[in-house]
Amino acid sequence: MFRFARFALCRQLMVRHVSATAKKSFSGLGKFNHVAIAVPNLEKATALYRDILGAKVSDVQDLPEHGVSTVFVELPNTKIELLHPFGEDSPIAKFLAKNKSGGIHHICVEVNNIREAVATLQTNNIRTLTKEPKIGAHGKPVIFCHPKDCNGVLLELEEA
Amino acid sequence: MFRFARFALCRQLMVRHVSATAKKSFSGLGKFNHVAIAVPNLEKATALYRDILGAKVSDVQDLPEHGVSTVFVELPNTKIELLHPFGEDSPIAKFLAKNKSGGIHHICVEVNNIREAVATLQTNNIRTLTKEPKIGAHGKPVIFCHPKDCNGVLLELEEA
Repeated sequence: MFRFARFALCRQLMVRHVSATAKKSFSGLGKFNHVAIAVPNLEKATALYRDILGAKVSDVQDLPEHGVSTVFVELPNTKIELLHPFGEDSPIAKFLAKNKSGGIHHICVEVNNIREAVATLQTNNIRTLTKEPKIGAHGKPVIFCHPKDCNGVLLELEEA
Repeated sequence: MFRFARFALCRQLMVRHVSATAKKSFSGLGKFNHVAIAVPNLEKATALYRDILGAKVSDVQDLPEHGVSTVFVELPNTKIELLHPFGEDSPIAKFLAKNKSGGIHHICVEVNNIREAVATLQTNNIRTLTKEPKIGAHGKPVIFCHPKDCNGVLLELEEA
């Protein structure tokens, strides 16, 4: 009984230690990661930023599992992400059907702890598009906040 | 005659010197200055960013000459600007009539020379909302590019 109690205490202390060191609790918004623009013609949009506005741009990256092709416009302090549908059922196809010329699709801001951020949102009745964070287009856990609860803005939070 | 010619030459050299040192030619896009969100309720929108999302926010600033009240959400690398109509004929009243919950109104990127940037836009048939740069809400020369020529995005260029 004593040995079990000691083991239980040890485990409790270990769990406490792990949760205290592995992740900080949500400390508020961090860096502005990117603004995403859905574009009807990726080549033409890239040419605007690269050839006319003189910005550095990335190569096209196809992300079939996310249904988009992307080009990043690299600015000194953040990025503009150009998004174009890839394949059937792209999450931005409907947006482009409504906005023929394209438009700003979402903004993405970093947080240090996505699970704690989600808990904070839930406590404050800010709805999210999925219940749990998912791995986003950049390989990091993300969650999208519902535009109706964020002044009409699709706000993506990404764990930094 | 000789004295006049010498004066004219001097003036020419001075003008050359001033234009060469005072301003560089347009060197492409610089820092991402802000993303502007039009909001139907400035107090509620500020509370979302300050109280729930834990960001530092500025006081409300009324800019009657621009027809807006603003609050800046200060992120480590850039700003989110919350915009609310101020007075009659606000430039964002129409936008909010169309987008009841609010929405992303424009993005602003810095340039080192606004006049050269405008010349570059004109050469490339990118329309601007005004012919000439104007002094913007932050006291700096700005120009707005036409959304139809920029993938549906109202793109503000601001001289840094």
